[in-house]
Formats: sequence, C-alpha cells, structure tokens
Amino acid sequence: MPQYVLTLSCPDRPGIVNAVTGRLLEHGGNILDSQQYNDLATDRFFLRTVFTAASATGPLQASFRELSRGFGMELSLRDRSHPRRVMLLASKFDHCLADLLYRWRIGELPMQITAVVSNHPRETFRHLAFDGIDFHHLPVTHENKPAQEAALWSLIEATQTEMVVLARYMQVLSDAMAARLAGRCINIHHSFLPGFKGARPYHQAHERGVKLIGATAHFVTADLDEGPIIEQDTQRVGHHDTPEDMIRIGRDIERRVLAQALRYWLDDRILLNGHRTVVFAV
Amino acid sequence: MPQYVLTLSCPDRPGIVNAVTGRLLEHGGNILDSQQYNDLATDRFFLRTVFTAASATGPLQASFRELSRGFGMELSLRDRSHPRRVMLLASKFDHCLADLLYRWRIGELPMQITAVVSNHPRETFRHLAFDGIDFHHLPVTHENKPAQEAALWSLIEATQTEMVVLARYMQVLSDAMAARLAGRCINIHHSFLPGFKGARPYHQAHERGVKLIGATAHFVTADLDEGPIIEQDTQRVGHHDTPEDMIRIGRDIERRVLAQALRYWLDDRILLNGHRTVVFAV
Amino acid sequence: MPQYVLTLSCPDRPGIVNAVTGRLLEHGGNILDSQQYNDLATDRFFLRTVFTAASATGPLQASFRELSRGFGMELSLRDRSHPRRVMLLASKFDHCLADLLYRWRIGELPMQITAVVSNHPRETFRHLAFDGIDFHHLPVTHENKPAQEAALWSLIEATQTEMVVLARYMQVLSDAMAARLAGRCINIHHSFLPGFKGARPYHQAHERGVKLIGATAHFVTADLDEGPIIEQDTQRVGHHDTPEDMIRIGRDIERRVLAQALRYWLDDRILLNGHRTVVFAV
Amino acid sequence: MPQYVLTLSCPDRPGIVNAVTGRLLEHGGNILDSQQYNDLATDRFFLRTVFTAASATGPLQASFRELSRGFGMELSLRDRSHPRRVMLLASKFDHCLADLLYRWRIGELPMQITAVVSNHPRETFRHLAFDGIDFHHLPVTHENKPAQEAALWSLIEATQTEMVVLARYMQVLSDAMAARLAGRCINIHHSFLPGFKGARPYHQAHERGVKLIGATAHFVTADLDEGPIIEQDTQRVGHHDTPEDMIRIGRDIERRVLAQALRYWLDDRILLNGHRTVVFAV
Repeated sequence: MPQYVLTLSCPDRPGIVNAVTGRLLEHGGNILDSQQYNDLATDRFFLRTVFTAASATGPLQASFRELSRGFGMELSLRDRSHPRRVMLLASKFDHCLADLLYRWRIGELPMQITAVVSNHPRETFRHLAFDGIDFHHLPVTHENKPAQEAALWSLIEATQTEMVVLARYMQVLSDAMAARLAGRCINIHHSFLPGFKGARPYHQAHERGVKLIGATAHFVTADLDEGPIIEQDTQRVGHHDTPEDMIRIGRDIERRVLAQALRYWLDDRILLNGHRTVVFAV
Repeated sequence: MPQYVLTLSCPDRPGIVNAVTGRLLEHGGNILDSQQYNDLATDRFFLRTVFTAASATGPLQASFRELSRGFGMELSLRDRSHPRRVMLLASKFDHCLADLLYRWRIGELPMQITAVVSNHPRETFRHLAFDGIDFHHLPVTHENKPAQEAALWSLIEATQTEMVVLARYMQVLSDAMAARLAGRCINIHHSFLPGFKGARPYHQAHERGVKLIGATAHFVTADLDEGPIIEQDTQRVGHHDTPEDMIRIGRDIERRVLAQALRYWLDDRILLNGHRTVVFAV
Repeated sequence: MPQYVLTLSCPDRPGIVNAVTGRLLEHGGNILDSQQYNDLATDRFFLRTVFTAASATGPLQASFRELSRGFGMELSLRDRSHPRRVMLLASKFDHCLADLLYRWRIGELPMQITAVVSNHPRETFRHLAFDGIDFHHLPVTHENKPAQEAALWSLIEATQTEMVVLARYMQVLSDAMAARLAGRCINIHHSFLPGFKGARPYHQAHERGVKLIGATAHFVTADLDEGPIIEQDTQRVGHHDTPEDMIRIGRDIERRVLAQALRYWLDDRILLNGHRTVVFAV
Repeated sequence: MPQYVLTLSCPDRPGIVNAVTGRLLEHGGNILDSQQYNDLATDRFFLRTVFTAASATGPLQASFRELSRGFGMELSLRDRSHPRRVMLLASKFDHCLADLLYRWRIGELPMQITAVVSNHPRETFRHLAFDGIDFHHLPVTHENKPAQEAALWSLIEATQTEMVVLARYMQVLSDAMAARLAGRCINIHHSFLPGFKGARPYHQAHERGVKLIGATAHFVTADLDEGPIIEQDTQRVGHHDTPEDMIRIGRDIERRVLAQALRYWLDDRILLNGHRTVVFAV
C-alpha cells in the first residue's frame, strides 16, 4: 500500500484531530505515525501524519481540501514514493557536498538531485562522482551577481527544484533571491547561532575563547543568519585548538547538522511557526 | 479547566485515534498534547494524550471504559492535579536522594513523597531536610531479609505508594518482592547497561579501559539488571580517571538519569512494550 | 609525603621544563602529573605540575622564586593540603548554591567556605543546612549599592577569601568591584555565551528558536558577560519547550558547569592567557 | 625546522622528565607540546613530546637510545614529516572507507595509504575514487582463509604497512593473524563495548531496548572484541528506532570514532598500558 504524509497547521480549536482521522478512516487510510503540537503561546496547532491508503488523490484529496478550508489550514499531502527534488550548491569546500552525495547514494536521503551548482568549476570537485547528476558552473563576480542569480533561478524553475541546499555555498544571496526562495532554501552556518554571525566564525570563536563550537542549519531569509533554525549541534574544543583545528572539528558538525536538517525536510518533519520551526524530530 | 492524561496501548487497527478523539469531543475534551506510536514489528499501538475537560469522571470515564473493552486496550486516565505517590529508598550514598528531594522541593517533580526508607539510620542523612516526610529505618541482615521486605511491603500498602524509587538502594530485592513491584519500581544502575552488570561497575569499567561511562534507569524485575530500560546517559572519561574519579563523575550521571526517568513516569510518559519501554519523551 | 601544585606562565624559550624539573629533582620533588601548553600564536608557555616533596617552603621555594625572575614567570606554588578559601554569593534561586554545598559536604570540592552571602535573607534558604558556615544578608537597593559592595569587600578581606563564586547572584557588580575581584570571581551565566547576553537569556533563546541551550562559567570583568570563559555546556531543546522548560533544563546545565569550573580552579587548573583561559582539564 | 614526536613509557622514578628535557636541550631541541601521565596503580610513566630540532638522527638519536636503556624505556622517536603507512580493509559497507579516504584527501589524516584491500571486488566501491591507491581483491571462503591471510600478510610486508585499519572489514582474523598484527591493527566495532559483543549488535541493542547506541575503536587481539579500547562514542535512540534506523545512526558514530582513533595513532597519541590505552587526546 502506498504511504502518504499529511502535514498541516491552523488556529487551534477542538475537533481537529477527530476531523482529520475521521476523513482518513472514511477513505480507508490507516495511520502509521502521527505527531501533534499545540503552541499554547500562539494558539496554533501543528500535525504530521503518515498513513497508508489505496490512493490519496481523488476523493481523499478533495475531502482534505474541503477540510482545510473549514479550519483555515495550511495543508500539504504528499506521496512518499515521489522523492523530492533538491538542488545542491557548493563553493570550494566540499565536505558537506561530498557527505550529502554519499548519503544519497546509499539511500539515506531519498531525493532526486536536480543539479549540483557551484561558483567554482567542475574540476574543483574532480574526486566526487556525480553519477550523471548535472553540474552547472555559475561563477560570481561583483558585476555579474544579478545575472548569475537570474541564471540560478531559471535553473531552479527549469528543473522543478523544490529545495535549494546551500552546502557551504559561500555567496550571500541577494534579498530578492532570498525572498523568492523563502521556505525553500536551507543553509548551513558554521557557528552556533546566534553566536558568531557573519564571516570567519571559527576565528571569532577562537578569539573569544569558547569551550564548544557548533553549527546551525536554518532556512534562508533576507535577514542574514536570522532565518528559522532547523537543527544545531556543538562539540567541545579547548585552549589547544587553533582556528584551523576548529575548522576541522567544525567540518564534522556541519556535515551532520546539514544532513539531519535535510533529512527532516525530506520526510516532511519541519513546519514553520512564525520565525521559528516545529520539527517533529522523531 | 482541569487537565487529564490518557495513556493506552492495544493491538493496532484502523480507527483508534478517531474513536478516542471522537469520545473526547463528545464530552467536551480539548487536546493539549498527543503522541502516538505504532510498533510495526509487534503491531501494537501506543497513545498518550493530555486534554482539558470539565470532568473526566462520570460519563467520560464510562465512555473510555467501554472503548477500551472494544479495542482490547490497556488504558489509564489520570487527573494531573493529583500528584502521584512515590516512596524513596536509599542506602549510604545519598546523592540521588538529595537530588530528588531538591527537585521535589522547587517543584520540578510533582509528587507526593509517601516516605523515605533506608537500611541506614536517619543520622546517615542528617544534612538532608525531610520537611515532615516520614523516614523509616529498615535495616537488613541476611537473616531478617524476608521480614524486612514484609515490613517494606506493608509500608507501601499503608501509604498507598504507587511507585518505589531505588535511589542507590544497595540491596537486591528478592524475586518475590520484585514480582510484586513489577512496573512500580524504578532503579538507577550505575553503569551503561548491558555493560558491567552486577557489583562495582565503575571498577569494572576502569579495568576494561572504556572511554565513556554511563548510568541506566530501569524498571526492576526479578531478573537483575535486565528490566525494561527507561533512560540512559554517558559521559567521557580517560586513562587518567581512577575508579574513584569514575564514581564521582558517575554520581552526576546517576542523579540526572534517575530524575529524568522519574519525571517521565510522573508525567505518564512511559508505557511498557514487552520487556522494552515506549517513552514519549517530549 | 605532602603534595604541591606548581603553575606558571612565561614567554616561551628553550629550557623551561628542564630548569623546572631540574630544581624539583635537586630538592627531592617527584612529579605526579604534569601538563604544558605553548600558545604558538602568542609565544607564551604554560605549565602545571603536581609533585610530592618533603617540603616546598624554604630552599625549594627560594629556588623557584629565583627561577621565576630569570624566565619572567608568573608562578604559583601551593600546598594541596591547604584548602582554598571560597565565598559563595546567591540570590533567590538556590540550585547552584545547594549543589555546591552538597558537593563540598561529600568531599567533591576541597575548599574552605568562608561565608554564604545573599541579597535575600537566610529564610530564603531555610531548607539548606549551612553546617556552621557564616551567612550574611547584604540587601541591595539602588541607593545602598556602593555601601553594600563596601560591606562585601570588607567581608572578603576579613575572611581572607581567595575566590568569590557568583552562584546565580543576580546583581551586576560595579566596575570598581569587578576590577578589584579581577581573576578572583567566577560567575555562571545562564546562556551559551556569546549568545544571549544580558537579562532573561532563556526567553531570548526561546524567542530565537534555538535547538540547544547552554550555560557559561567565566571570570567576572568590568565588561559584563565578556570575561574569560572557563567552562561551557549545552543541552538539546525543542519546539515544545517553553521558556519555563528551558529554565528547568538550564538549572541542570548551570549547576554542573559552575561546579566543574570551580573544581578546575580549586585544583589550580586554570591559567589566564590574555582574555582567554588555559584549562588543564584532565 | 623539522618536527619530531617522542613517545615513551617506563617504570616511574624521579628524574625522567628532567633527563629527557636535558638531552633535548643539549641537542638543540625545542618542545612544542608535551604530555605526561603516571599510572599510580601500576607505577608506570608515559610521555609524549613534540619538539623541533635541526635533526633527530645521529647524536640525538644515540643519546635517547642510551637514555632508554638506563630507564628501561619503550621509546619511539619519529619524524613528523614522514607520513605513516596505513592499509585500509573493508567489506561491503563502505561508509568508513569512504570517510577515511575523504579525510585523507583533504589533509585531515596525514598518512600514506599502502593499499585498499577487500574481500569484495573493486566494483563494490565503484563510486569511490582511489586516486591511484592500489586495490586488492582478496576473497575469503571457509576453505581459503589461511591462504587469504597469508596473501594479506605478504601484502602488509611488501608494502611496509605500519597499521592495518579494519574499516568495517567483516571477517574475523585468525588468532595467528591477530597475534602477528598485535598493536598494529585497529578495528571499529559497531557497538558500545563491552555491551553487545559479536554479530548484529544493533539488532541486539534494539532487542534490549537501550536508549543510546555506540561504537568502539580498539586494537585487535586474538580475544575477539576484547582488545584495548582507543575511542568510543554514543548517540541517543528511542523506541521508534528500528534496527535499520540504528544501523543508519550507527554509521555516523562508526565513521567518526574510527577516524578519531586513526588520527590519534597517526599523531603518536596512543600508548599501550597493559590491556588498556593511554590516549593523549589533546
């Protein structure tokens, strides 16, 4: 039986779960996994349900569409057998890119990679097997940035990309581009936000003498380093660690945090709650 | 509005959540928090729901009782304003006992402490303020063990104790006593089970040269150190750590693991799944 | 044989360790533990050595004094059997105070507590046994702050206090007081600095939607929340955690981070390296 | 100036560090980093020192040879610019192999890879770029095992391999082979030893219902899963994690634990202390 994921958020009120499960039952759906969350501060309700059904198109879909109107829901219904379309952007450092490609290859990240894009040439990644994934070299200069972003946007549209992953892509997107990609672009920042925003965070961390460093995966917004946080992790460092040691240790944190964030998204586990996220992590 | 916690487990089949939420809706219940889990390997379903309602006695209770018969449910319905009744047992080392008392005092652990019991005299805990909690000194010898356990059991019954916490109580319960307390007794074992069962686990860990030590909170069963695990944690050690250092580091792990396990239980977050636990941790 | 701890820092140059160990050997010292660190960025050398000797006064002391002049060393030589003199300051929240007192009582923190001081009355801590430790109630108002700090300073001098521990003491020290206590005052800040400086850090963390919260023990300087960091730790939180949950989770992090920092200091493991610390943690 | 690493262990007695540093000073050595450890239980002393010198052959080497005789030292002196020779063995699962190759490529693991060896054909690793590293397919059957191990041994000798890394090589070495490779072979075991020895540890962990899983890097000995432990780490799991989830989560732990252990060894940070290790981790 095919599996579907239903996610929704709406103003809280009695009867939501009963209405959702009632319609599932009516159309032969069987729940495999379900999580709910009520944000008591904002009175908003969030739900993620995985279910099997003969079909989620036709009557079931229509039924949920009607339901979502009645409750004022933002609702998404997705066939789990259709992998999502993801574009990977990287610059010179390829540890996150190599890691995502490896996890994709062995089946950890069920996605369709629409393209790998870099402001550096294919040669930079000569050791990485792309297995037929298209590679696009889109160099950036101060002058060509609008044109480069236009080309990137065309590519996103042409490839029907649903999510853009900035896998240590070291170019700041323009406000316009960030706005276009709202909720559709994940970045890995090499610090434990909100500490050490901006450039060279490991050097900042070393200078401040912190005893832990971290990394943060977040949705990209026009407000740099301020987008909704999806996942973070930290690791212990000490006085003996140079900025270079921190960069090395940080690579491990970055790649696992970004992979985890993407994994959550691919499995429809992330819902936006204002400028924060609800992550049904389990 | 009073809050209630409903927990249940039953064989999985379509319609459970809809039936539960339907009855809640019918009796004016409003869900605050809900978690479900289907164990696909055993086809068993688990649910925990927190809801508000004018009353959960009378018709609502009757309705759930009927429901539980229909679905073959093990079901529990509890008023959250009634703190659970917990007995604390300790021996000479009082770090877990002191920690639980402190957390209880500042409101972290909403419970009614029915008694503190020890095989050591009150004087052993002279620095601990018991705030009117009854203390019982029940010394154990090889000879008096059956009598001592009988006295303990009488006390449990007389105080209507729902949960017995072995807070580094260094006496092994008899099989009969363990059986009587099945599902109602939590122990903290000072090792990362199943490693280092039995006595002096930190010495065993030192001897083996492990690089992390841990602690395990588990339900007590007749099969020593084999009961269902509720919570575990570990911490890094090194070649420079003596067994005494490990004992010191371990105290911190033990007290936070035991407090976490008890907190889960007080909040009805632990359900038994054979010899394993389902812990709705969040 | 009595144990001594030698700590020193000086500009790096060949022969330091040989000179130190030569003088130890000459006076019958036997090294139990030794750690060194060269900060290649600043060319500064740091050493901590624990040794046994019949005596570290008289000729040995004179020999090290001479040595320190030759190498431009900041040097300290301490008899480990003389516990250091520590004053504990707290306000309303007593989880750190209670924790430090407990650890002191069972011998985890070898120190002489010179006094407990609070801007709240003894009654606030009625559940804590002080075991004869002097308690001083020094209330603070906007008007009496200079007088209150003068009284505090008199007490520090009268009790020969070597270290002042701000165990969630919720008063900002004046610049003058902070300067007087430079290197002699440890604070626990309830956030993972440099994130969330200032007041109500858990509310800030919740508002920002971080996935980990932390705590930081640091030396107090006139520059608030900017003093040299000694120890930090973090713990995972999620969307379901309210600011109140974060405060609860934070209490555990705060008390273990502060206790660890104090433990390092009591064991002469912390050396200042500009506005950072060298912590010989092991 | 070239850098050298000196490591030694010997029975403890006064004057060791002074003698070592004296000889360094005499031959123009300048210490960059040094760590010592006295095992008070066994009265054995361990030291690792990194120093610069014009040369560590000739007189300096002779001086240390003489020294080691006098103190009964096991002593090693190595030029850090000569990368160590390492052979990588893998079976079907290549996450550890891919990870080690990636880290080697970007300079995280300074080593000379003498060969990649597998009981599976090159085709199994078709996505991995070997960059000219020799690959050897040495299939194993019940019958050919002695011959296969003889071939492996010849290869180790012919390539002057100093360390054999079992990067999820799923064949148990014969006792004779394990003995030959004593101290020269690191394995990654996919469990938190001593828990869950033997086959299918993640299935064992799932069955037992543990709340953390782990991995262990250890030296291989004839006594399976009992060799000296070098490095371990754990990660949280829950009731919702199937054995397959644990295998996935475990891959991340395995690869970082093995890489860390190898990194320690490449940097001469591991000394044997009976059946335990001293790891100068920092």
